[in-house]
Amino acid sequence: MQVKVFLNEDEFPRQWYNLAADLPTPMQPPLGPDGKPITPDMLAPVFPMNLIEQEVSQERWIDIPEGILELLFRWRPTPLHRAVYLEKALGTPAKIYYKNESVSPPGSHKPNTAVAQAWYNKQFGIKNLTTETGAGQWGSALAFACALIGLECKVFMVRISFDQKPFRKIMMQTWGATCIASPSNQTHAGREILKVIPDTPGSLGIAISEAIEAAVTDKTGKTRYSLGSVLNHVMLHQTVIGLEAKKQLKKIGEKRVDIVIGCAGGGSNFAGLSFPFVADKISGADIEIIPVEPTSCPTMTRAPFVYDHGDTAKMTPLLPMYSLGHGFIPPPIHAGGLRYHGMAPLVCQAIVEGLLSPRAIDQNECYAAAVQFAKTEGIICAPETSHAIAAVIQEAKKAKEEGKEKVILFNMSGHGLMDLTGYENYFAGNLIDYPLPEEELQKSLKSLEGLPKPPANKSGKW
Amino acid sequence: MQVKVFLNEDEFPRQWYNLAADLPTPMQPPLGPDGKPITPDMLAPVFPMNLIEQEVSQERWIDIPEGILELLFRWRPTPLHRAVYLEKALGTPAKIYYKNESVSPPGSHKPNTAVAQAWYNKQFGIKNLTTETGAGQWGSALAFACALIGLECKVFMVRISFDQKPFRKIMMQTWGATCIASPSNQTHAGREILKVIPDTPGSLGIAISEAIEAAVTDKTGKTRYSLGSVLNHVMLHQTVIGLEAKKQLKKIGEKRVDIVIGCAGGGSNFAGLSFPFVADKISGADIEIIPVEPTSCPTMTRAPFVYDHGDTAKMTPLLPMYSLGHGFIPPPIHAGGLRYHGMAPLVCQAIVEGLLSPRAIDQNECYAAAVQFAKTEGIICAPETSHAIAAVIQEAKKAKEEGKEKVILFNMSGHGLMDLTGYENYFAGNLIDYPLPEEELQKSLKSLEGLPKPPANKSGKW
Repeated sequence: MQVKVFLNEDEFPRQWYNLAADLPTPMQPPLGPDGKPITPDMLAPVFPMNLIEQEVSQERWIDIPEGILELLFRWRPTPLHRAVYLEKALGTPAKIYYKNESVSPPGSHKPNTAVAQAWYNKQFGIKNLTTETGAGQWGSALAFACALIGLECKVFMVRISFDQKPFRKIMMQTWGATCIASPSNQTHAGREILKVIPDTPGSLGIAISEAIEAAVTDKTGKTRYSLGSVLNHVMLHQTVIGLEAKKQLKKIGEKRVDIVIGCAGGGSNFAGLSFPFVADKISGADIEIIPVEPTSCPTMTRAPFVYDHGDTAKMTPLLPMYSLGHGFIPPPIHAGGLRYHGMAPLVCQAIVEGLLSPRAIDQNECYAAAVQFAKTEGIICAPETSHAIAAVIQEAKKAKEEGKEKVILFNMSGHGLMDLTGYENYFAGNLIDYPLPEEELQKSLKSLEGLPKPPANKSGKW
Repeated sequence: MQVKVFLNEDEFPRQWYNLAADLPTPMQPPLGPDGKPITPDMLAPVFPMNLIEQEVSQERWIDIPEGILELLFRWRPTPLHRAVYLEKALGTPAKIYYKNESVSPPGSHKPNTAVAQAWYNKQFGIKNLTTETGAGQWGSALAFACALIGLECKVFMVRISFDQKPFRKIMMQTWGATCIASPSNQTHAGREILKVIPDTPGSLGIAISEAIEAAVTDKTGKTRYSLGSVLNHVMLHQTVIGLEAKKQLKKIGEKRVDIVIGCAGGGSNFAGLSFPFVADKISGADIEIIPVEPTSCPTMTRAPFVYDHGDTAKMTPLLPMYSLGHGFIPPPIHAGGLRYHGMAPLVCQAIVEGLLSPRAIDQNECYAAAVQFAKTEGIICAPETSHAIAAVIQEAKKAKEEGKEKVILFNMSGHGLMDLTGYENYFAGNLIDYPLPEEELQKSLKSLEGLPKPPANKSGKW
C-alpha cells in the first residue's frame, strides 16, 4: 500500500489562495489608536509596501514570484503521508492523511512565509529584518530565510527561552542571525522594563515591542519588522500546504475529505492547510474543519470576538479577533506556539461565519496522542502539533463507533526534536493540565474594556 | 534551475548491492580468540541466522524483502539536491550534488539498516534487541525501528552522553525503548567496572560489552544484539543511498560523477553512498572516492591494516581492518560518530585495493565548512557530516583552480539539530584541533601486538 505521496516541482501550485476573497462577510479593517481604520501608509515604517498590499488584498489568487518558488523548492513540495499504522493501532475505518511539514531545514511550516517575507523585503530594498520569538521556532525560520536571501536578521528572544533553550539560539546564530535576550538594552522599551524589573523573564509582548521599535527607529530606512503568524499575508503564504495536499490526494485517487484538522496558536499552520478546503466548504462541500487549541489558552472556544491589540504593550493596531485580552498570561504549557491571547483575524472571521468547528484539548491527552503517533507513524511531533493529533484520534475513534470510513486530513506542522522536555515530563507523570478557570478568564477580559467592538456580520452573529 | 530531485517509490531499488562480490581480493574472514575463522554458528547467539547469512554472503545483489521496502518508504526515497548556492558562494565550476539523509524521522542515514535489522530479527522470531550508543544517533534509530516493527529495544548509552545529552534519551523513550546509562548494574561486565570505578564516564567499548552480554545471556533465547555500523550487512543495507543517487542523477541527465565523498567513522554512510560507485570504478570508471575522517582519529590515513577487536573489552571477533588499536582513546571532538578506532572491513579492503582515497581534516575546518553550508544550502548538518562538506569544499576549490567542471556527489548523512553544542563552541572560538601526535599513535598501536596479521592481497600490498 502506498503510504506517502510526493509531488514534483512542476506540479507545485503557482498561486497562493486568499480566503479574504471568498468570505461571506468582508473582513473588518485593523484600527489605529484613534479607532479609525489603519491605512497602508501607516504601516509603511513597519512592513514593506509589497507585503502591505498583500495584507489588504481581496484578490482570490496571488501569483507566487519565481524567486520565491526557487526558495520553496529547497524543501517543498512536502510529502503527504497516509497514517496506515496509526489507523491500524486505532482499529478505525477512517483513512488518515497528513502533510509532513517537519522536513523543512528548520523543522516546521514556518519557513513557508519566512522565505516569502524575506524575498519581498529584499525586493523592496530592505537590508535588515527584525522579529521576536518565544520558544524559537519562528526566529530560527526567519534566520534561515534571511541566510538564503542575504538579509541581516535580528531576533529578540524572550529571555526565559533564551536561557532555557540555548539550542534554538545556536540555530539562529549558525544561519548568521543575531539573537538577543529580551528585554534588552538595545531599545527604549527594553531599557524601561529593565529599569523596573532587572531580572524579568521577559514576554512575547515585550519582545514584539522591542522588535518593532528596532525596525521603525532605524535611521537608514532599510529595516523592517517581520511577523510569523496572525496577519493575512502570513496565512496567504502558508496556503501552499493545503494546495499541495489537494493535488496529492487527487494523485492517489482520494475524491473527498470529510475532516480537516490543524492546531492553532496564531493560526498560520491551520490556515495553510485548511483555507483551500474552507473555500470548498463555502462552495457547498460537506467538510468539518477543526482548529485545535489548548484548554489553557482557549481563544477560539471561550473568548469573545472583539477588537484587541496583538501585543501586551499595545503597540500593534487593533485587530478583529477572538481574544482572551492582551493582558492574558498563559500558563506554562509546553506548546509555546499555542500560548497566544488572540488568533489570526482570517481564522476568526471564518469561525464567525460558522465555517470552522474549534476544539480545545488538555495537554496530557495531547502528549498521549503524540506518543502513540511516534510509536506508530515514527515521527516525534512538536508539542503544538500534538493538539492536532489528539483531535485526529478523537475523530478516528468516533468514526469507528459510527462505522464510517471518514477521510481525515491533518497538518503535521513540525517535529519536536528541539522540544523534548515536554515528553520527559509526560513520561515522568509531571505534566499538569491547566483548563482556564472561568474567574481568570473574566479577569483577563477586563483589559478589553473601552476598546471598539466589531460590527455584526450579515447573519447578525457575535 | 532544478535544485532537487525526488524519486517515486516505484523507482526505488529492489535489491541491495554487495561490494564483497566485486572486490579483486576476497574478504578476509573474522577470526575467533584462537586465531581461527569464525563460523556462522559461533555468531548465532549474537545475531539471527538470516543476518549472519547476509554478513558472509558473496552474492552481488540481494533482494530487499517487501516488508522492509514498506518500512523504508516511511521516509525514502530521500531527495537528491544540487548545491547551487554553495557552488555560487565558492565561485566554482564544479557541480555539487548531495543526498539528504536528514529527512528520516531520527534525522540520519542510520534507520536504513535499523529497520532492516529489526525486520530480519522479527522474522527469525526474536522479541528483544539490545545495542549500545555513544552520542545517541544509532540508539535512537534502532528505537525508532523497533517501535515500527514491534520489538522491545534496550539501549546501553555511554554514561557521559546519557547525562549530557538528555534529549537523545527522551527520543528513545518516546519510541518505547529502554535507555540505560552504561556501565550499569544490569550486566556482569557493568557491575565489575562499577566496583572498580563507581564514577566512570563509561565508554563505547564498555557499552558494547554490556549490550552483547545482555543479548547472549537472556535465557528465553529471544534476544539478539544489533550493531549500527562496521559489519558487512550494515554496509549492504545502506547501499540504497548510492543506488537512489544513481537513478536521480540519471533522471536529471547527469551522465558522470567525478568525485564521491562521505564522512567515515564506522563506515556505513560512506559505504552506503559510495559502494555502487566503487563498483563502477572496479569496472574501469574514472572516479575519485574519498572517505573523510578527523585528524584526531586518523584510522584510514595513519593506522596499519591489521586484525583487531571491534571493542575495547575484546569481546568481539578479530576483524581485518585499519585500526588505531582497540585501546585507543579518541580526543573529545564533537563528531562522536567518527571517534572509532577501527573501520568497516569492506571499506578497509577497498582502501587496500587502491579504490579509495582517504583524507583527514581538522574539526575547525569542518565547522567552518558546516557554517558555510548552513548559510548557503540552508541545512545545519551533523558534526560528522561536516567532514564530508569540508572535503567537498576542498575539491570544489581545486576544480576552480584547475578550471574544471567536476561533478561532485556527497552524503549529507544527518542534521545537527541534536548536536548544536559544537557550533556554539566554534562560534565562541573554543574549538580545539587535535591532530594525533605520532608518539600517541605508536603507543596506542602497542595494543595490536601479538594479534594475527591479515595475509597480503594479490598485489602484495600492506
